[in-house]
Amino acid sequence: MTTIAKKWTLAKQFDGEPKVSDFKLVEEELSTALPPGAILLEALYLTVDPYMRMREYKIGDTLVGEQIARVKVSNNPNFPEGALVLAFLGWRSHTLVPHPEKEIVSGLGVRLLPDFGDLSPSLGIGCLGMPGLTAYFGLLDRGNPKPGETLLVSGAAGAVGSVVGQIGKIKGLKVIGSAGSRDKCEWLKEVGFDHVFNYKERTVDEALKEFAPEGVDLYFDNVGGDFAYDVMKSHMKFGGRIIACGSISQYNDKERIERSTKAFIIYKQLTILGIIVNAYTKRFTEGVTELLQWVKEGKLQYKETITDGFENMPSAFISLFRGGNTGKAVVKA
Amino acid sequence: MTTIAKKWTLAKQFDGEPKVSDFKLVEEELSTALPPGAILLEALYLTVDPYMRMREYKIGDTLVGEQIARVKVSNNPNFPEGALVLAFLGWRSHTLVPHPEKEIVSGLGVRLLPDFGDLSPSLGIGCLGMPGLTAYFGLLDRGNPKPGETLLVSGAAGAVGSVVGQIGKIKGLKVIGSAGSRDKCEWLKEVGFDHVFNYKERTVDEALKEFAPEGVDLYFDNVGGDFAYDVMKSHMKFGGRIIACGSISQYNDKERIERSTKAFIIYKQLTILGIIVNAYTKRFTEGVTELLQWVKEGKLQYKETITDGFENMPSAFISLFRGGNTGKAVVKA
Repeated sequence: MTTIAKKWTLAKQFDGEPKVSDFKLVEEELSTALPPGAILLEALYLTVDPYMRMREYKIGDTLVGEQIARVKVSNNPNFPEGALVLAFLGWRSHTLVPHPEKEIVSGLGVRLLPDFGDLSPSLGIGCLGMPGLTAYFGLLDRGNPKPGETLLVSGAAGAVGSVVGQIGKIKGLKVIGSAGSRDKCEWLKEVGFDHVFNYKERTVDEALKEFAPEGVDLYFDNVGGDFAYDVMKSHMKFGGRIIACGSISQYNDKERIERSTKAFIIYKQLTILGIIVNAYTKRFTEGVTELLQWVKEGKLQYKETITDGFENMPSAFISLFRGGNTGKAVVKA
Repeated sequence: MTTIAKKWTLAKQFDGEPKVSDFKLVEEELSTALPPGAILLEALYLTVDPYMRMREYKIGDTLVGEQIARVKVSNNPNFPEGALVLAFLGWRSHTLVPHPEKEIVSGLGVRLLPDFGDLSPSLGIGCLGMPGLTAYFGLLDRGNPKPGETLLVSGAAGAVGSVVGQIGKIKGLKVIGSAGSRDKCEWLKEVGFDHVFNYKERTVDEALKEFAPEGVDLYFDNVGGDFAYDVMKSHMKFGGRIIACGSISQYNDKERIERSTKAFIIYKQLTILGIIVNAYTKRFTEGVTELLQWVKEGKLQYKETITDGFENMPSAFISLFRGGNTGKAVVKA
């Protein structure tokens, strides 16, 4: 017996914003007669994330990323048929994994999904997965926030930003978010942000003069570019901290150049703290456990923007750069 | 009686590298009949520093900066005639200070110079003053170095960099410096840097592959621009720290734009730590005391590039941007 596996590969190097024609859907036949230890996975939910734009691919490479998959055929007692896994296997509908235990060790990542109870397994690539953990460790470990501090979150309605702001509220901060539509702003107010503004309707300067006249202690930067420049120039407190998580406003620029913020870093003695979630692999269980608890208690709410169909992965990905998602962008295979 | 005071003012806004014609020497007559509490200061040594390029001046403004001055006439028992002071009074040969105590409070800064023993009072604007303290608090407080770590210093033969590298050696670090001439490199080897390279003779990449194959833990950045980009792209260790002290390679750029280093900050989880010495005013005595001790013990060596004559302040300043100084650039009035 065989299964038809599909994968999305790079057809053409990205030139500015990715286009559907930059991707190519490739099919291959996989045998379902598995050698001992092997499993065949079927993707249920796949993630699209901005960071995928920054990877260096060769033509023909499969796009990278995590998926929630079900074990469709198993010849491995540790991964029985029907089990759900979180796997860093790229944009693939079906994947034959010869040694899933080795994948864990090598970091490619095939691991059994924690039990989320009644919650959707898709949260394993959302607020209970990489984006949620990025928010968790970025804000709490790197940012070291103190109750009463003023936190600004850009890209606040995104998969990371929405979790950052809500954790900020749990920890007693004053939280200000920016997002790019009225609907997004309304949702952020509903989940407890103190102040929200639509950066398409008013400038950063105007909004922060109103919402943070005392200045910003902590800025969780998902956006970069002119937004970050304006914040650093005029709104950071002396000694403030900036968590550098993403720079989506720049990912499609051919030359990634920006106005220098060095003078502000120096004269205001700012601290810039990069966050990459892979630095926290040993603490993932701790993070997921606490995030899951907050979700169950209703303290952490989430949205997913679900695109239906594996064949629509490129368009779901492209939509990220146009602000098309509220909360986590997920593709349902 | 009167004294002729000279001051350097801005004649024309800087356009790229400062030119002598951007400055204007202005004379004024000061009465030596002082009201109670006032003092008349005569500059002995004046500092020129890169940061002066970044200030926003109006035409006619006096250039800012510190000087070591002697109390020439006094009507204030706390500042007797002949006493030496450190004063943030700008590019002025003589200054009437009506209330020197208030100046201390207001932060303009007229304070009695600590006793340096046999050492030149000019060190009060050098390795025992602002540049030395910037190195001290930048490296030790912001950088929090650990013995055995690898420290890279750019602009290493400058007033700040040369002190940074030597403190690094005192604290048990492996220290690599870059400078722009063979003489500077030789001096840095003499004062104990482990490795030094002339960035005009070999690339950062080539030098650091040889001298820091293990990667850089701590990078004290005085230079910015492409040098910093190359370091951050290819030579920082995962989790490394960068002390952002200066960006002299960019100060004369009309638009200060640079290649984005965000991706490296994120993917390597770097920490960028701005340092401005004014954040440490309460700890200046602690810093000067320890620096002075190291100088007396011969553990901290210094050079001064002295330009003779108050009338040559503009050219001494311009020379900074051409790498004209080794150690501290000082103008002897």
